[in-house]
Amino acid sequence: MRSLFCEPPPIAPEHLPQGFKFASAACGLKKGKCPDLALITSESNTATAALFTSNRVQAAPVLVSREHLRASGGNIRAVIVNSANANCATGAAGLAASRATAAGVARELGCRKEQVLVCSTGVIGLPLDVQKILGGVGGLARTAENSPEAVARAARAIMTTDTRPKWATSTSWIGDVPVKLIGFAKGSGMINPHMATMLAFVVTDAAISRPLAHRALQAVTGRTFNCVTVDGDTSTNDTLILMANGASGAPVIRSVESDFERFVAALESVCKELAFGLVADGEGATRVAEIEVRGAPTDEIANQVARTIANSPLVKTALAGADPNWGRILCAAGYAPLPKRMLFDLAHPDIRLAGTVVCRAGQACAFDEVALHEKMLVEHVPVVVDFKRGKGQAVVWTCDLTSEYVRINTAYRS
Amino acid sequence: MRSLFCEPPPIAPEHLPQGFKFASAACGLKKGKCPDLALITSESNTATAALFTSNRVQAAPVLVSREHLRASGGNIRAVIVNSANANCATGAAGLAASRATAAGVARELGCRKEQVLVCSTGVIGLPLDVQKILGGVGGLARTAENSPEAVARAARAIMTTDTRPKWATSTSWIGDVPVKLIGFAKGSGMINPHMATMLAFVVTDAAISRPLAHRALQAVTGRTFNCVTVDGDTSTNDTLILMANGASGAPVIRSVESDFERFVAALESVCKELAFGLVADGEGATRVAEIEVRGAPTDEIANQVARTIANSPLVKTALAGADPNWGRILCAAGYAPLPKRMLFDLAHPDIRLAGTVVCRAGQACAFDEVALHEKMLVEHVPVVVDFKRGKGQAVVWTCDLTSEYVRINTAYRS
Repeated sequence: MRSLFCEPPPIAPEHLPQGFKFASAACGLKKGKCPDLALITSESNTATAALFTSNRVQAAPVLVSREHLRASGGNIRAVIVNSANANCATGAAGLAASRATAAGVARELGCRKEQVLVCSTGVIGLPLDVQKILGGVGGLARTAENSPEAVARAARAIMTTDTRPKWATSTSWIGDVPVKLIGFAKGSGMINPHMATMLAFVVTDAAISRPLAHRALQAVTGRTFNCVTVDGDTSTNDTLILMANGASGAPVIRSVESDFERFVAALESVCKELAFGLVADGEGATRVAEIEVRGAPTDEIANQVARTIANSPLVKTALAGADPNWGRILCAAGYAPLPKRMLFDLAHPDIRLAGTVVCRAGQACAFDEVALHEKMLVEHVPVVVDFKRGKGQAVVWTCDLTSEYVRINTAYRS
Repeated sequence: MRSLFCEPPPIAPEHLPQGFKFASAACGLKKGKCPDLALITSESNTATAALFTSNRVQAAPVLVSREHLRASGGNIRAVIVNSANANCATGAAGLAASRATAAGVARELGCRKEQVLVCSTGVIGLPLDVQKILGGVGGLARTAENSPEAVARAARAIMTTDTRPKWATSTSWIGDVPVKLIGFAKGSGMINPHMATMLAFVVTDAAISRPLAHRALQAVTGRTFNCVTVDGDTSTNDTLILMANGASGAPVIRSVESDFERFVAALESVCKELAFGLVADGEGATRVAEIEVRGAPTDEIANQVARTIANSPLVKTALAGADPNWGRILCAAGYAPLPKRMLFDLAHPDIRLAGTVVCRAGQACAFDEVALHEKMLVEHVPVVVDFKRGKGQAVVWTCDLTSEYVRINTAYRS
């Protein structure tokens, strides 16, 4: 696997799906003329599926996008994204702003406003100056193009505290026709499963029915975006959108057979790289841990335990120090909030840290602390917790908690 | 209220309960001859109640203390505490070490080993060198005395990453007789409700039946120790012990009437000061927030929401920066993990930060950011989140998340 702690490699033109265009602009929401607006358009009809945050506080753009997705039957033609302002907790004015944004884009593109999805990311509770966005929309539509540079610029325009853009590509074969997928995402803090993404967009020129697009997205999300965490804070704006426009000319994927499976694999590859990229660019992160829980009675229990470990500040600071302090892992497993009906013995797992067994059946094993510390001074540290009580398993990726996370979030606004 | 960000004032001799003795020693578990062993003894029989961690991984001393509490019918004569090693995940050897420790103390004091409780705090998964403890026990018993200095030294001996000792006193009247309570506690990281305490000890010369002592402790804990959090990490060793020996000569509290109520109030005063002290000495803490949730359908929901806010890394870093970033509070409320049957509108609270209304019915209010930032540059910041949907309420205290927390926990062992 390539290092996730640097910018992804440039996009090759042959990896671009056909029939999409991308644009970005600086409309004045960010200071210093930094790009803060991005547009994705499809030249033809699409089957679009989307997943939104599970936070019970939902931002205006999430509410409007849900509405538009329903009203258009998933035939979305454009996604407009602004950074620097989440347009959340902004009341009726916020809803009006998201609707006006969609309408403005629809006018430029000549589609219905219900065919436009709206995403916002940034500070919560700040009134959104929608005139700035509307002022930028015309230029966006005119300059949109299908080029690697346009995708890269759009990926940069949606960044907030991200230190680098995240994109990923994949190609699959449907019938005899190659179909392309490209995705980009932003997210660095306020990242936690359900939806972990903050914002992520995947477009493809494959042709797929809307129900299958949704099914593919759900399946893949459970194994990618919902398996990462930076700080346990589930955002109010998280959105993942998959747009398929069929411009490749490939046969339509209509049933759950081999074409569908191949498409899901390609989608998973893109989503996984983006999700990993989010964790690796977690605010202040220097190291990623893959927390694998095995041998639980069910996958659900394994997942809950893995997440509890992945969100423990003490586990995350130990990771920052490359400290093989496995007692903190055992402790976190012990306080995983399992419902009563799920009670089982959490006290006696085997724990393997960066390949070294440090705990067997809940008890300390002798190991070379200094050698293991040095083994942990890498970008990616695998952690395996095996309860040997069943076949349930789960994997959650988390980053370390460093002083830099604190510095970023102490200084974010003040 | 006195500042909790400094050592508590010296204990006045007249605040000491009668019939207890305290001692401490350096037995070699900590480096540099730092005190690491503390002893509390009662000269006569006691009614002792205790609460232990809810973590499903329980340290050897917790298991042994539970056993001894049952076996002695609550008639505990001594508590022995070591710091620097949690004696957790240490298997059969760890259990044997805790039992040998209790037996060693019992021999010195001439009581049954079941009348001795054992507490340990420190690193998890490190074999405990019980010979060091046994070597220190004789000296402890001989030097124990009932003096303010002995209590203060014992409070210091149980510290790990704590930067200052915590103790508190209270006096109540039972019948015509004054009864005294004194408590001390340690805890700085791995602090989260259920039991939040790490270790806390309260002794009193009041006379109370064992069932009522337990009832008092449970009632008070729900309003004090279980309302604080530092990092959401519930430890494997948390223990809170209340010993009442009746040495004041006051009438025995046998029924839930006015004497009992007065005793509970005095106990609550001690526990509250200790619990606040834990948060204020939270690893790296510079500021404490009191998160009050009101207007929820039930107290249980209010508590869950308050805790979710109190454990959000983004809320805690904003607190460090005295940043009135109330959007993070709203966001955290929105992802509080409420069971489905508890669903209610989390999106539209009023939020008051340090006395200033910043959000009304889920929407931004205009306020002076700079003025509020300056108002928040204090030790204690009140936060009120009011859903106006019922009478449920809860209060949780939390500290800010600073780079110092990260530094402490990155460097703890390595």
